[in-house]
Amino acid sequence: MTTAPADITPYNLRQRIRAGEHTGNTSGYSQGFVQGNLVILPKDWANEFLQFCQRNPKPCPLVGMSSGPGKYLLPDLGENLDIRSDLPSYRIFRNGEMVEEVTDISDYWQDDLVTFVLGCSFSFEEALIADGLEVRNVTEGVNVPMYRTNIDCKPAGSFSGQMVVSMRPFKAADAIRSVQICTRFPSVHGAPVHLGDPSLIGIEDINRTDFGDPVTINSDELPVFWACGVTPQVALEQAKPPFCITHSPGCMLVTDVPNSKLAVL
Amino acid sequence: MTTAPADITPYNLRQRIRAGEHTGNTSGYSQGFVQGNLVILPKDWANEFLQFCQRNPKPCPLVGMSSGPGKYLLPDLGENLDIRSDLPSYRIFRNGEMVEEVTDISDYWQDDLVTFVLGCSFSFEEALIADGLEVRNVTEGVNVPMYRTNIDCKPAGSFSGQMVVSMRPFKAADAIRSVQICTRFPSVHGAPVHLGDPSLIGIEDINRTDFGDPVTINSDELPVFWACGVTPQVALEQAKPPFCITHSPGCMLVTDVPNSKLAVL
Repeated sequence: MTTAPADITPYNLRQRIRAGEHTGNTSGYSQGFVQGNLVILPKDWANEFLQFCQRNPKPCPLVGMSSGPGKYLLPDLGENLDIRSDLPSYRIFRNGEMVEEVTDISDYWQDDLVTFVLGCSFSFEEALIADGLEVRNVTEGVNVPMYRTNIDCKPAGSFSGQMVVSMRPFKAADAIRSVQICTRFPSVHGAPVHLGDPSLIGIEDINRTDFGDPVTINSDELPVFWACGVTPQVALEQAKPPFCITHSPGCMLVTDVPNSKLAVL
Repeated sequence: MTTAPADITPYNLRQRIRAGEHTGNTSGYSQGFVQGNLVILPKDWANEFLQFCQRNPKPCPLVGMSSGPGKYLLPDLGENLDIRSDLPSYRIFRNGEMVEEVTDISDYWQDDLVTFVLGCSFSFEEALIADGLEVRNVTEGVNVPMYRTNIDCKPAGSFSGQMVVSMRPFKAADAIRSVQICTRFPSVHGAPVHLGDPSLIGIEDINRTDFGDPVTINSDELPVFWACGVTPQVALEQAKPPFCITHSPGCMLVTDVPNSKLAVL
């Protein structure tokens, strides 16, 4: 008898990932627990990136950090959690360019590396669905549509850029409900940043996504836009730090933190 | 030296009203304190009306009730508050039709009358303005635009009808903020019920109001719609109780309850 993906504990999933038994993405696994985006930077760059997150909490909501340079265990986020081996796939960047995709970063580890874990939309999508809302990208089984906008992030040192947003269409009453639900979860992007006319935030064609896939928008629905975790990735590509490690898209860090713990009320 | 309208205490304002020294509307007076809509019904009809309020809390949010039939003092809402004399103007209805407008209802009082006080939008407009949002009807110095919709209220006995909404235009980010702010105040209509396309709730022409005045809507703004306290008045006109008393439009009951007391969080 095997455990369903949704029911596997985060600890057991990380152990399987570490052993190379799970290599794909983590969507739908260990439901009810926070999954996070990963950014690892050398100490010199980490301070500026931390400041960038602090100044732009909606696209870059920090849910955890290593306790110091070189530390690869993150006990606050999970039992025996080793950031070097516990994600299914990593991307290695040099000077802003991806040079490799690997399943373990132990060989790349340096004593000056600082780890950042940023909240992701899986947590709030779960809260929306639990309330009875239909999340279109989930229903249609595709990646959430994402767009570059003309909304400037607040710069911090080398880090700057424009916000990337994800979009989910809702009828107005559900859009209002989604604001209420997501307001409770500031550390996973919080309330939407825009709704209605896409052109007002610099999106020319809602059917042409910059990342992810388009979804159906019915005539009685409004597009609702959330700050997206791709924003820091774009900022990283522009800042071009000499070295950087991130998760591969969809292959997140699965933590022991219940989603409900992120609710501020 | 006279006290500015905004700074007069609710108690002093009610004393002046009782003495016939203030007869106009109460908008802008005693800022920071809850003002309420008034509905007075014979006991036989009061139970059904109470049920109608309970089933439709967004248009009919109860902030207070008399402690029993015939009781005209409402100590929970204000010191020495006498509902028969402490509003600037009342409307007397017989069989659903207004027959008189008076400044004191002592002569109409009966031992079977039950008093309802319903929250009004003054409280949440104050919260929106305090947060830096521009409330268009306030800026333009007109009554808030109100519309009949095709949203059915949940019926209760003789009471039924469609929801009346008020409208305030906002840019999307402010519309999202208004949802957050008003969610804290369920007893003054709470979060908006709709935003965006007016035709989806049966409003054909946003520039033609059913009550109140039209306001400017800029091209980068969305109309945002709240359930409105005119809804129970329409339900009363349709139910045609043999006898009923309400406040005159704009001439509210000014209570001793701070607006902040209505915040649920």
